[in-house]
Amino acid sequence: MKIFKQILKPELIAAQIPGRLVIRAEVFLDNVAELEEANNHSVCFYQDKKYFKKLLSSKAGLVFVPADFDENILPEGNLFKVEIPYIYFMLLVQKWLELDQPQTAKKIAPNAMIAGDAEIAEDVELGSGVYIGSKVKIGKGSVLEANCVVRENTVIGENCHFFPNVTVYHDCVIGNDVILHSGVRIGADGFGYLLHDNKQFKLPQVGNVIIKDEVEIGANSCVDRATLGSTIIGKGTKLDNLVQVGHNCVIGENSILCAQVGLAGNTYIGDRVYLAGQVGTADHVTIGDDVMVGAQSGVAGNVAADTKVFGYPAREAGLTRRIMASEKYLPELVRYYRKEIKEKN
Amino acid sequence: MKIFKQILKPELIAAQIPGRLVIRAEVFLDNVAELEEANNHSVCFYQDKKYFKKLLSSKAGLVFVPADFDENILPEGNLFKVEIPYIYFMLLVQKWLELDQPQTAKKIAPNAMIAGDAEIAEDVELGSGVYIGSKVKIGKGSVLEANCVVRENTVIGENCHFFPNVTVYHDCVIGNDVILHSGVRIGADGFGYLLHDNKQFKLPQVGNVIIKDEVEIGANSCVDRATLGSTIIGKGTKLDNLVQVGHNCVIGENSILCAQVGLAGNTYIGDRVYLAGQVGTADHVTIGDDVMVGAQSGVAGNVAADTKVFGYPAREAGLTRRIMASEKYLPELVRYYRKEIKEKN
Amino acid sequence: MKIFKQILKPELIAAQIPGRLVIRAEVFLDNVAELEEANNHSVCFYQDKKYFKKLLSSKAGLVFVPADFDENILPEGNLFKVEIPYIYFMLLVQKWLELDQPQTAKKIAPNAMIAGDAEIAEDVELGSGVYIGSKVKIGKGSVLEANCVVRENTVIGENCHFFPNVTVYHDCVIGNDVILHSGVRIGADGFGYLLHDNKQFKLPQVGNVIIKDEVEIGANSCVDRATLGSTIIGKGTKLDNLVQVGHNCVIGENSILCAQVGLAGNTYIGDRVYLAGQVGTADHVTIGDDVMVGAQSGVAGNVAADTKVFGYPAREAGLTRRIMASEKYLPELVRYYRKEIKEKN
Repeated sequence: MKIFKQILKPELIAAQIPGRLVIRAEVFLDNVAELEEANNHSVCFYQDKKYFKKLLSSKAGLVFVPADFDENILPEGNLFKVEIPYIYFMLLVQKWLELDQPQTAKKIAPNAMIAGDAEIAEDVELGSGVYIGSKVKIGKGSVLEANCVVRENTVIGENCHFFPNVTVYHDCVIGNDVILHSGVRIGADGFGYLLHDNKQFKLPQVGNVIIKDEVEIGANSCVDRATLGSTIIGKGTKLDNLVQVGHNCVIGENSILCAQVGLAGNTYIGDRVYLAGQVGTADHVTIGDDVMVGAQSGVAGNVAADTKVFGYPAREAGLTRRIMASEKYLPELVRYYRKEIKEKN
Repeated sequence: MKIFKQILKPELIAAQIPGRLVIRAEVFLDNVAELEEANNHSVCFYQDKKYFKKLLSSKAGLVFVPADFDENILPEGNLFKVEIPYIYFMLLVQKWLELDQPQTAKKIAPNAMIAGDAEIAEDVELGSGVYIGSKVKIGKGSVLEANCVVRENTVIGENCHFFPNVTVYHDCVIGNDVILHSGVRIGADGFGYLLHDNKQFKLPQVGNVIIKDEVEIGANSCVDRATLGSTIIGKGTKLDNLVQVGHNCVIGENSILCAQVGLAGNTYIGDRVYLAGQVGTADHVTIGDDVMVGAQSGVAGNVAADTKVFGYPAREAGLTRRIMASEKYLPELVRYYRKEIKEKN
Repeated sequence: MKIFKQILKPELIAAQIPGRLVIRAEVFLDNVAELEEANNHSVCFYQDKKYFKKLLSSKAGLVFVPADFDENILPEGNLFKVEIPYIYFMLLVQKWLELDQPQTAKKIAPNAMIAGDAEIAEDVELGSGVYIGSKVKIGKGSVLEANCVVRENTVIGENCHFFPNVTVYHDCVIGNDVILHSGVRIGADGFGYLLHDNKQFKLPQVGNVIIKDEVEIGANSCVDRATLGSTIIGKGTKLDNLVQVGHNCVIGENSILCAQVGLAGNTYIGDRVYLAGQVGTADHVTIGDDVMVGAQSGVAGNVAADTKVFGYPAREAGLTRRIMASEKYLPELVRYYRKEIKEKN
């Protein structure tokens, strides 16, 4: 249950979100909740029939329901009939969060350490223990929470939000409206060594990382700097937690990398690509636009745009599914083969 | 070798742990060690025959041995004959650690930053650089080491121990006796977006995380907040390092999630479940009580209580083992099939 | 593009790196870059023919080319003909970085918190918000950047570099010239519990971690302390980001563990071993010297020295490749078997 400071009435909600109110009792609303935890000040939504029982026993003060919902099912409930309950409910949550946003001025913690030649725009918030290196630039409206560290020469755009304990290495470029969750590491050295005389010789990593506008990166994910040139995350792309992006990768726009995905160096990912959890890619692989890759897949070669691949190794998803369905017969088949066929020959 | 401040004599050990002493020389004991690194002040244990040679050459001052151990094998050694050497040895280590625990008062570092309206109980330790947000509550006896950050409204129970650089986001609830290792991130946003007009629209994440009593979470693991409602880790459950728990997951009691396990959103895990390393689960999957899942498995569907599953995809463990054993014949079988059978038809 | 403070002339480069200059125009050089982003002050390299078009259109001021490169291809370009362009170019980058290194004295930030009984050698740099525990020793020339935390009794050698937000637990031993990237966690508790009376009993973890000289560990990687004894990373071994090393693992010298590799407890890894990304190993497994393990493999048993293994489960790499090549015929084969053979019998 998320309780807001701002109290809403159903009429105010209906004034902002398209739908039709069915009100049986006066309520004031101060929270959003799941059906089963709701109280009579809660807004909830009902979309999937599997939650019908929860709907019937819910104490919710107002429920977003589908437009064709039979009002008689809840004769005493307050309903808001909308096109797609989940989406319109989320729209309400977003608007309510904005209403609740405190309008206090952002401030720089007294114990933040800022290099003398850093350029911090107005209306920037720097939390307790933040360290800002030499020649760093931070655009207006950006918030860096407690204990974030930004190394020298990095440029951060406007209205970014870095949660606590983020590190951005030197020389990187972060766009506007970028969200970095706690523990994200941007710009650590690419992983490059040369085995010579039985000793690993470190290749210097002098490129950087460029994160475009509206990117969000989940907790404890890592994006390595390029050996030379730039590792690039395209506009609007979202990375989940514990994701690894190797040196010199280039990721397009509005792509989704789920948790624990790992991209080896020099992976090229298109726009609107979806990589499910724990997917791995080999280096120098190109994945086209609108590709979907199933969970835990190992992508060893290029993937053409607009295809679905899956498996270890990643293959056309339907083929992998057929292979997987066949595998349970394999022990029997091998037994037959070894006994009936091999013996005869 | 772990050296303790408190020195023990064999008799004192025997007074606390059930077993029978066989003493051939007077010793004082100040450390626990592996057999090969031991000195004559070390306590060691011997249980597995594969370490027999190490036992013979060990300099240990006292060795925990099985109750039926032949004393003549080490005619000059000091022995402590116990039921299960490893377990009783670990019991000693635990007691010794407690004896060694300094009884000094916990203190709040002068450079910890604490919001004016936070409620910090007595006997709480806040390390250097800790930041505690508005309205946070911390129960008595809890220790938050250097550079931990707790965001607003979060409630932390009694006798918790957060190692350095932990982050807990806002509105979360942490029980008593919870251990969070360094770099743990609790309550980062769930990973939810809606692709609309070729743009990823962020779904607000307004739920929280509830961590029950006696949970331990390993270094750099992440537990995301719920979209709505709560992500819940049940009492006594233990997570290893680099584990990912997605939004709205509910994990039961005394379960074990090994390193690098990843749970997609809305995974339901029962009690005493064991997920080996690098296991992944799909979203909305339910795993029953007492289930064991083998390493690197991909759990795509529900798993009934009390079963063992394994593989990619996860299947009944015996079947997966038979499939794996058959696979080595597959190339030969396919060659035969393509040549002998396909050609004929 | 990496811009250096120090400006170089081609002749100065040729004086330090073996090769033959072909100069058509006077230039001064202040950066290294990829061919396509180069300006007329850039040094680039050309080795792989797939970048030939980029070479032709590059504005580079000087290009490292192979010794047999036809000079007439770039009649107006400045060339430096060397044996292996990539390697010699990297050598230049390394030397240039060293030239650029500021010679200013290292310093201890005024807000670093250092226990009174810690021993900090001369010429050590401790960044903003660093916390150094009781009895810690740090050797000369080492740099610990902002918000690093070192717990009591740990010993750190000379010329180490810890990037921001690193944690090293108590009692550990770090050699000389060790690089720990941001978010590395050394010495968190090994993951050991005993299920007794349906409750997980924590086994005390009183060993430590020993990191030998010239080890480099990537961002957010974790090396757990031993239960008893030591977890050991051998000299010159390199770990990428998000790697997990369990308690009591022993890794040899000059081995490579790529991103997201996970070693269960008590894994023994030889010298010059290469573990590709997302590999997992079972506990108590031994992997011999010079072994290569393919990406995402699951190593469940010992692996002999000098072999290549791959797959889930990991098998001799050629066999796994043949199995994978055969799998696409499996659905057809199973269909045939079920229809033609099973029905007859």
